[in-house]
Amino acid sequence: TPESAERTAVPGVATGLAVTGAGGDVLFIEATALADGEPGLTLTGQLGDVMKESAQIALSYLRSHGPELGVDPAALHRRLHLHVPAGAVPKDGPSAGITMVTALASLATGRPVRPEIGMTGEVTLNGRVLPIGGVKQKLLAAHRAGLTEVIVPARNEPDLDDLPATVRDQLTIHVVADVADVVRLALRPVEAGTLANAA
Amino acid sequence: TPESAERTAVPGVATGLAVTGAGGDVLFIEATALADGEPGLTLTGQLGDVMKESAQIALSYLRSHGPELGVDPAALHRRLHLHVPAGAVPKDGPSAGITMVTALASLATGRPVRPEIGMTGEVTLNGRVLPIGGVKQKLLAAHRAGLTEVIVPARNEPDLDDLPATVRDQLTIHVVADVADVVRLALRPVEAGTLANAA
Amino acid sequence: TPESAERTAVPGVATGLAVTGAGGDVLFIEATALADGEPGLTLTGQLGDVMKESAQIALSYLRSHGPELGVDPAALHRRLHLHVPAGAVPKDGPSAGITMVTALASLATGRPVRPEIGMTGEVTLNGRVLPIGGVKQKLLAAHRAGLTEVIVPARNEPDLDDLPATVRDQLTIHVVADVADVVRLALRPVEAGTLANAA
Amino acid sequence: TPESAERTAVPGVATGLAVTGAGGDVLFIEATALADGEPGLTLTGQLGDVMKESAQIALSYLRSHGPELGVDPAALHRRLHLHVPAGAVPKDGPSAGITMVTALASLATGRPVRPEIGMTGEVTLNGRVLPIGGVKQKLLAAHRAGLTEVIVPARNEPDLDDLPATVRDQLTIHVVADVADVVRLALRPVEAGTLANAA
Amino acid sequence: TPESAERTAVPGVATGLAVTGAGGDVLFIEATALADGEPGLTLTGQLGDVMKESAQIALSYLRSHGPELGVDPAALHRRLHLHVPAGAVPKDGPSAGITMVTALASLATGRPVRPEIGMTGEVTLNGRVLPIGGVKQKLLAAHRAGLTEVIVPARNEPDLDDLPATVRDQLTIHVVADVADVVRLALRPVEAGTLANAA
Amino acid sequence: TPESAERTAVPGVATGLAVTGAGGDVLFIEATALADGEPGLTLTGQLGDVMKESAQIALSYLRSHGPELGVDPAALHRRLHLHVPAGAVPKDGPSAGITMVTALASLATGRPVRPEIGMTGEVTLNGRVLPIGGVKQKLLAAHRAGLTEVIVPARNEPDLDDLPATVRDQLTIHVVADVADVVRLALRPVEAGTLANAA
Ligand SMILES: [Ca+2]
Ligand SMILES: [Ca+2]
Ligand SMILES: [Ca+2]
Ligand SMILES: [Ca+2]
Ligand SMILES: [Ca+2]
Ligand SMILES: [Ca+2]
Ligand SMILES: [Ca+2]
Ligand SMILES: [Ca+2]
Ligand SMILES: [Ca+2]
Ligand SMILES: [Ca+2]
Ligand SMILES: [Ca+2]
Ligand SMILES: [Ca+2]
Repeated sequence: TPESAERTAVPGVATGLAVTGAGGDVLFIEATALADGEPGLTLTGQLGDVMKESAQIALSYLRSHGPELGVDPAALHRRLHLHVPAGAVPKDGPSAGITMVTALASLATGRPVRPEIGMTGEVTLNGRVLPIGGVKQKLLAAHRAGLTEVIVPARNEPDLDDLPATVRDQLTIHVVADVADVVRLALRPVEAGTLANAA
Repeated sequence: TPESAERTAVPGVATGLAVTGAGGDVLFIEATALADGEPGLTLTGQLGDVMKESAQIALSYLRSHGPELGVDPAALHRRLHLHVPAGAVPKDGPSAGITMVTALASLATGRPVRPEIGMTGEVTLNGRVLPIGGVKQKLLAAHRAGLTEVIVPARNEPDLDDLPATVRDQLTIHVVADVADVVRLALRPVEAGTLANAA
Repeated sequence: TPESAERTAVPGVATGLAVTGAGGDVLFIEATALADGEPGLTLTGQLGDVMKESAQIALSYLRSHGPELGVDPAALHRRLHLHVPAGAVPKDGPSAGITMVTALASLATGRPVRPEIGMTGEVTLNGRVLPIGGVKQKLLAAHRAGLTEVIVPARNEPDLDDLPATVRDQLTIHVVADVADVVRLALRPVEAGTLANAA
Repeated sequence: TPESAERTAVPGVATGLAVTGAGGDVLFIEATALADGEPGLTLTGQLGDVMKESAQIALSYLRSHGPELGVDPAALHRRLHLHVPAGAVPKDGPSAGITMVTALASLATGRPVRPEIGMTGEVTLNGRVLPIGGVKQKLLAAHRAGLTEVIVPARNEPDLDDLPATVRDQLTIHVVADVADVVRLALRPVEAGTLANAA
Repeated sequence: TPESAERTAVPGVATGLAVTGAGGDVLFIEATALADGEPGLTLTGQLGDVMKESAQIALSYLRSHGPELGVDPAALHRRLHLHVPAGAVPKDGPSAGITMVTALASLATGRPVRPEIGMTGEVTLNGRVLPIGGVKQKLLAAHRAGLTEVIVPARNEPDLDDLPATVRDQLTIHVVADVADVVRLALRPVEAGTLANAA
Repeated sequence: TPESAERTAVPGVATGLAVTGAGGDVLFIEATALADGEPGLTLTGQLGDVMKESAQIALSYLRSHGPELGVDPAALHRRLHLHVPAGAVPKDGPSAGITMVTALASLATGRPVRPEIGMTGEVTLNGRVLPIGGVKQKLLAAHRAGLTEVIVPARNEPDLDDLPATVRDQLTIHVVADVADVVRLALRPVEAGTLANAA
C-alpha cells in the first residue's frame, strides 16, 4: 500500500490493526529516539492506560530479551518517544503490544519494517503472544488497506475461520506464540550500510 | 497584516489558523528558549491534552529530524516555553502541529517566520502532515486577517473546492504532505548576521 | 495612597487592578527571591490556572527579554515566590500579566515600583500587551484607592470613553502595547546605592 | 495556662487562635527541623490549601526578611516539619499566618515562645499583617484558656469593641501591622546558653 | 498471646488497638529499613491520609527527639517501609501515632517490643500524647486477644471507668502524656548481642 | 500443565490463583530486572492499589529478609518490572502477595519456579502469611489447569474441608505460615551453571 510504504520507509514505524467504531482500521506506531534526555518513554496519541502499559511492557521485554533478537538493549536506554496518529483519536487496549515491540526493535536495529505486513497481538513481559479480539474486522481492514501479510496470535487461530475465503486466500497469515517470531518476520533484512537513525 | 507582522517580527513566532465558536481565527504560537533550566517544554495558554501532545511531537520531530532541515537539535535541548495567546481561552486539537514545528524551527535557527503566511495541519513524529477539519473557516479567517499565503495538508485538498472563488484567487495555497516543506516555505531566508535570540 | 505606599516601599511589589464580585479593587503582587533553593516559581494566593500561567509567562518574558530592559536574567534564575494577598480569596484570569512582569522586574533590579501607579493587562511571551475586561470598574477602583496614574492596554483605549469625565481628568492614563513600556513607566529611577533585597 | 506552658516549653511551638464549629479555640503550631533531608516543608494536621500556602508564605518571609529579625535564613534552609494538632481535625484559612512565622522564628533562634501569649492574623510575603475574622470568638477562647496576652491585626481594631469589658480588661491586646512586631513581642528573651534544638 | 508473640518477635513490630465496624481489634504495625534507597517512608496497608500523616509525625519526632530516648536519628535516615496488615482493609485516624513511634524506635534500636503490651494514642510532633476515641472497645479487644498490659493517653483516664471491673483488674493500664514514656515501657531491655536487623 | 510449563520456563515467573467473575483462575506473575535505570518497581497489568502495595511489600520483604532465603538483596536493588497478564483485565486484592515474593525470589536467584505448583496468600512485611478468600474456587481452578501442588495459608486450613474429595486427593496441598517456606517449596533446586537472566 502506498500509505504504509511511505510510513514505514524509516526505521521505527510498524503497522498495527485496530478495531474502531466503524469496523477495523490500520494504524501506525511511530518510535523515535532522542540524542539527549532522561531515559524513558514519552507517549502521545491519546493512549489509554492499558495501551500505555503495553508500551512499557514492549520496552522492558526488549531491554531484557533484546540480545536473543539481535537488539542491543543499550540502544533503548534513551529518551524514546512513541506516537500513534491520529493525535486526537483516543486509543486503548493491549492488542498493539506486538506492534510496539516491532516498532522499537526496528528503531533499535535501524532495520525498517516490511511495508506489506500488519500485525495485532498482546505481548507479555517474557514475550508470550496472547489472543486479542476483533480478528475478523482487523484482517478485513488489513486487506482493504492493501497489506498482503498479517501476524496474529496463535490462540486466535480459530477466529480465522470467520474470514471470507477470498480475503483469506489473498493474505499470508502468520500465527505466532512468541514475539521473537514477530520481530523476525517483520523487520527487513539487514542491508549493508543501514544505520539506526538515532545511532 | 499589521498584527502578524508585529507578532512574527522576532524568531520563534508562527501564525496558525483555528476554528472557534465564532468561525475561524488566526492565532500566534510563541516559542522562547531560556538560557538556564532543565531541558523540556513549558506550555501555557490553557492548552488541552491533545494540543500539549502536539507540542511534544513537534519538539521530538525537530530533535530527531532537525539536521535534514538545517535545525541544530542541540538548540532545542533547553528549557523551552511555548505559549498560545489569548491566555484565558481554552484551546485543543492536533491542528496546530505544523505551526508548532515552524515556531520551534524559527526559534532554533533565528530565522523569523514570513509574516504573510498562515498554516494548519496535524504532524506525526516522522513529519507526515495529516488532514484537519474546518479548512474553509480557517482560510476565510486567514483572508480576513490579511494573510496572503496559507499552508494546508495535502489530504485536505478536496476541501479547497468549498472556498469562494474570490478568496481562493487572493490566497496562495500550498498543499503539503511533509512538514519539512512547511518549514522551507515559512521561514525567511537566512540573512547575514542573523542570530537566534536565545543563542 | 497610604496603603500602596506602604506596600510598594520594598522592591518586588506592584499594584494591580482587578474586577471582583463587588466592582473593581486594587491588589498587590508581591515577589521575593530566596537565597537558596531550586530555581523556579512558588505561587500562593489561591491563584487559578490561567493566573498561574501568567506568572510563568511573565518570568519567561523577563528571562529572555530582560537585557533589553536592564534586567539581569540571572537575577531571576532562583527560587522565586510570588504571592497575591488576600490569601483566602480565589483569583484567576490573565489580566495581572503586566503587573507580574513589573513586580519581577522591580525585584530583579532592586528599583521599587512607583506607589501612585496601578496597572492591568495580559502579556504574551514576547511582551505584547493584550486587552482585558472591566476597564471602567478597574479605573474607578484605582481612583477610589487614591492612585493617580494607571496603565491599560492600547487595545482597551475605546473603553476609556465609558469612564466619568471627573475620574478621567484626575487620572494619568497610559495606553501601552509593549510591556517594556510598562516597566519603564512603573519602576522608580535607579538611585545611587540601591540594591536588590535578594542580591 | 498549664497546657500552653507545657506545649511552648520547647522552641518551635506557638499558640494560635481559631474559630471552630463550637466557637473559638486555641491551637498549637509545632515546628521541627530535621538534621538531614531535602530542604522544604512537610505539613501535617489535615491542613487545607489556604493554610498550606500560609506556611510557605511564613517560611519565605523569614528566609528573605530573617536578618532584620535576628533570624538566620540558613537555619530555615532544611527539612522542616510543621504540624498542627489535633491530627484528625481539618483546618484551613489564612489566619494562622503570624503564628506560623512565630513558630518558625522560635525554631530558628532557639528562643521559646512566651506561654501566656496567643495570636491570630494573616501575613503577606513582605510581612504585612492583614485582618482576619472571628476576633471576638478567638479572644474569648484565649481568655477561657488562661492566656493573658493576645496579638491581633491593626485593621481588626474596630472588632475589639465587641469584646465584653471584663474580658478586655483581663487581656493585654497588641494590635500589629508588621509581623516583625509579632516576633519581637512573642519570643522569650535570649538567655545565655540557649541553643536551637535542631542546631 | 501467641499471635502477638510471633509478630513482635523481631524488632520493628508494635501492637496497636483499633476500633472497627465489629468493635475493637488489635493490629500490628510493621516497620523495616532497607539497606539502599532514597531516605523516606513507604506506607502500605491502605492507610488514609490522617494515618499517613501520623507516620510522618512519628518519624520526625524520633529524628529530632531520638537522642533523648537512646534512638540514633541516623538509623532512621534511610528508606523505611511501614506496613499495617491486613493489606485490603482501609484504615485511618490518628490513634496509631504512639504505636508507630514504638515500632520505629524498636527498629532503630534493635530492641523488640514486649509481646504482652498493646497501645493507642495520638502523638504530636513534640511527643505529647493526645486523647483518642473508643478506649473501652480497644481495651476489651486487648483483653480478648490475651494482652496483659495497655498504654492509653492520660487525657483518656476518665474513660477507664467504663471498663468492666473484671477486665480492668486483669489489665495493667499505663496512662501517659509523653511518648517517651511509651517507648520506655514498651521496648524490651537491651540484651547483650542484640542488633537492629537493618544495621 | 503445558501453559504453566511454558510460562515458568524462565526465572521470574510464578503461578498464582485468583477468583474471577467466572469462578477461579490461574494467573502468572512475571518479573524482570533491567540492566539500567533507577531502582524501583514498574507495575503493569491494570493492578489496583491493594495489589500494587502487595508488590511493594513483597520487594521490601525480600530486600530485608533475603539473606535468610539465599536471595541477594542487591539483586533486587534495580529497576524491576512486574507484570500480570492479561493486560486489559483489572486485578486487585492482597492474595497474590506470596506469588509476588516467589516470582521476585526466582528472578533474584535465577532458579525457575516449579511448573506444577500454584499458590495464594497475603504476605506481611515480615513474611507472615495471612489468610485469603476463595480457597475452594482457587483450588478447583488449579486442578482444572493441571497443577498438582498448591500452597495456601495455614489459617485457611479449615476451608480445605469444602473441597471435593476427588480433587483433594489429586492435589498436594501445603499449608504455610511463613513465606520463607513458600520460597523453599516453589523454587527449583539450584543447578550447576544456572544464572539469573538479568545478572
Ligand atoms: Ca483505564
Ligand atoms: Ca482530553
Ligand atoms: Ca469538496
Ligand atoms: Ca482553569
Ligand atoms: Ca466606548
Ligand atoms: Ca481550597
Ligand atoms: Ca473601636
Ligand atoms: Ca465593632
Ligand atoms: Ca482524608
Ligand atoms: Ca467516665
Ligand atoms: Ca483502592
Ligand atoms: Ca470448613
